[in-house]
Amino acid sequence: MKHTKIIDCTIRDGGLVNNWDFSVEFVQDLYNGLNDAGVEYMEIGYKNSAKLLNATEPNPWRFLDDQFLKEIIPEKKFTKLSALVDIGRVDPNDVLPREESILDMIRVACYVREVDKGLELIQMFHDRGYETSLNIMALSSAPEHQLIEAFEMVKESPVDVVYIVDSFGSLDPSDIEHQVKKFQAMLPNKQLGIHNHNNMQLAFANTITAMRNGVTFLDSSVYGMGRAAGNCNTELLVSYIPKTTYELKPVLGVIEKHMLDMRQKWEWGYIIPYMISGVLNEHPRVAMAHRSSPDRDKFVEFYDKVTTPEASLAPV
Amino acid sequence: MKHTKIIDCTIRDGGLVNNWDFSVEFVQDLYNGLNDAGVEYMEIGYKNSAKLLNATEPNPWRFLDDQFLKEIIPEKKFTKLSALVDIGRVDPNDVLPREESILDMIRVACYVREVDKGLELIQMFHDRGYETSLNIMALSSAPEHQLIEAFEMVKESPVDVVYIVDSFGSLDPSDIEHQVKKFQAMLPNKQLGIHNHNNMQLAFANTITAMRNGVTFLDSSVYGMGRAAGNCNTELLVSYIPKTTYELKPVLGVIEKHMLDMRQKWEWGYIIPYMISGVLNEHPRVAMAHRSSPDRDKFVEFYDKVTTPEASLAPV
Repeated sequence: MKHTKIIDCTIRDGGLVNNWDFSVEFVQDLYNGLNDAGVEYMEIGYKNSAKLLNATEPNPWRFLDDQFLKEIIPEKKFTKLSALVDIGRVDPNDVLPREESILDMIRVACYVREVDKGLELIQMFHDRGYETSLNIMALSSAPEHQLIEAFEMVKESPVDVVYIVDSFGSLDPSDIEHQVKKFQAMLPNKQLGIHNHNNMQLAFANTITAMRNGVTFLDSSVYGMGRAAGNCNTELLVSYIPKTTYELKPVLGVIEKHMLDMRQKWEWGYIIPYMISGVLNEHPRVAMAHRSSPDRDKFVEFYDKVTTPEASLAPV
Repeated sequence: MKHTKIIDCTIRDGGLVNNWDFSVEFVQDLYNGLNDAGVEYMEIGYKNSAKLLNATEPNPWRFLDDQFLKEIIPEKKFTKLSALVDIGRVDPNDVLPREESILDMIRVACYVREVDKGLELIQMFHDRGYETSLNIMALSSAPEHQLIEAFEMVKESPVDVVYIVDSFGSLDPSDIEHQVKKFQAMLPNKQLGIHNHNNMQLAFANTITAMRNGVTFLDSSVYGMGRAAGNCNTELLVSYIPKTTYELKPVLGVIEKHMLDMRQKWEWGYIIPYMISGVLNEHPRVAMAHRSSPDRDKFVEFYDKVTTPEASLAPV
């Protein structure tokens, strides 16, 4: 486990909860807390293009800017910084050579059918000096033959880490073990990463199962903050993994100072409609819409809606 | 998994959260909901003795009375009823022969050092016609030689089910697998049960790990309600276990009608001081006291308190 690395995604995945409404103070406290806790990476947001997304409002953690990052983190410490990009939403011209940026790693999220496009971006970022990862989303519904084709391309690429992403929070520890073995067999030359969602309260269990099976990059977020049911909790990983460099206390400090209030203001975690979407292996968007409606606590109604045959045909 | 049985402990273990302040309506709705969900057992409380506990207030779910039970559950359905008793707190004279009671199962909780006393009670309840289980608590801190001696006695007893109880919520899936294999090897003639706490968000993962390894009696509670971090969630088991008789919807109905309000009024679940006590393999009582104090959200202070060397010497 000494090769294990935690990537804290509080800002990036948590931003999907609150539209990245994070104060500079919070992001700075989080960086310092993660650094003191010995967490290896902090994913400080998305490096997508405001122009490509027709964004009308500034959103510094969604459209990361190197100059701004250097201002708010004037002193880079042990914890490295990463950014996530989406296919078709990133303008490669926005990505400086690594020596001019304080980012260390660029991660590319893509569906299995777009792996070729993902790998083009990876090649570009790799050539600019970054560590790279390819995060294959919605794995639980990817057809096997697409995965096999994708792996053939991935094997030949310079990508450092390939992620298993349980986007819908529908996998259990034995599914994770199965996926890890498949990825290892088909990508023997790559490090693997894992990103879980907590719909069925399995994010932490799935993450440590992946770790025991040889996965080295573990995604998490403080107090589990992330879209819908949220992620594996950073404080649990830091407590659990027997690595002498990890310290729980600085993470507790961040939770105490910030996360309790944030959890009052915004919602994530084990919430029944998200549990249901996990069980049904569905994207959480229908459940998120339900939680934003006046019927948010009508669980039986929600269950009926998503389990009637028409529901699965409805456009989402 | 067709031999799997769920024992819902909402009233019994949840009562440790709210001093069994459950309305008759709630208990009836829960019984009907669990029955409609196909849950095999409902633990409707403790059958301890008010006299032996010097109780001054009536507490119907802590001191179960057969006559009262028959009044509130006039029609027994599919779901069986169980009660828990503690060594030294139960008066065997209070336990009627099974044919005069609506209880089906009596479970005896004990520490490994008192297994002999537990088995005396088991023999008595077995002779009166009940299904029985022995629930060995605080397993994570039981010395190995005591366990081996205890198993020798258990093997010869008529007890139907022997429980692995993770009282402190400190075990992970691989610990559970190890314990299950040990219990199976030493008690080949007994069915096994599992009772987990959710301090590290592992109660559900640990329960399904136990199930995959052959454990047949699975404890849970609706919305996880149970002491401190609570238990494995009944709604997760009912969703997850591929048994055609299980239905999620009736459990959702109970959560929607009752549990959200109850969770506002009383506290259980993934709460940082309980996470810390799980990680440290400690009884949650110090964390519970902290949560009842004005410093309840001072997590760093709590962590310092329980990790300084003096803390572990303090009387509890």
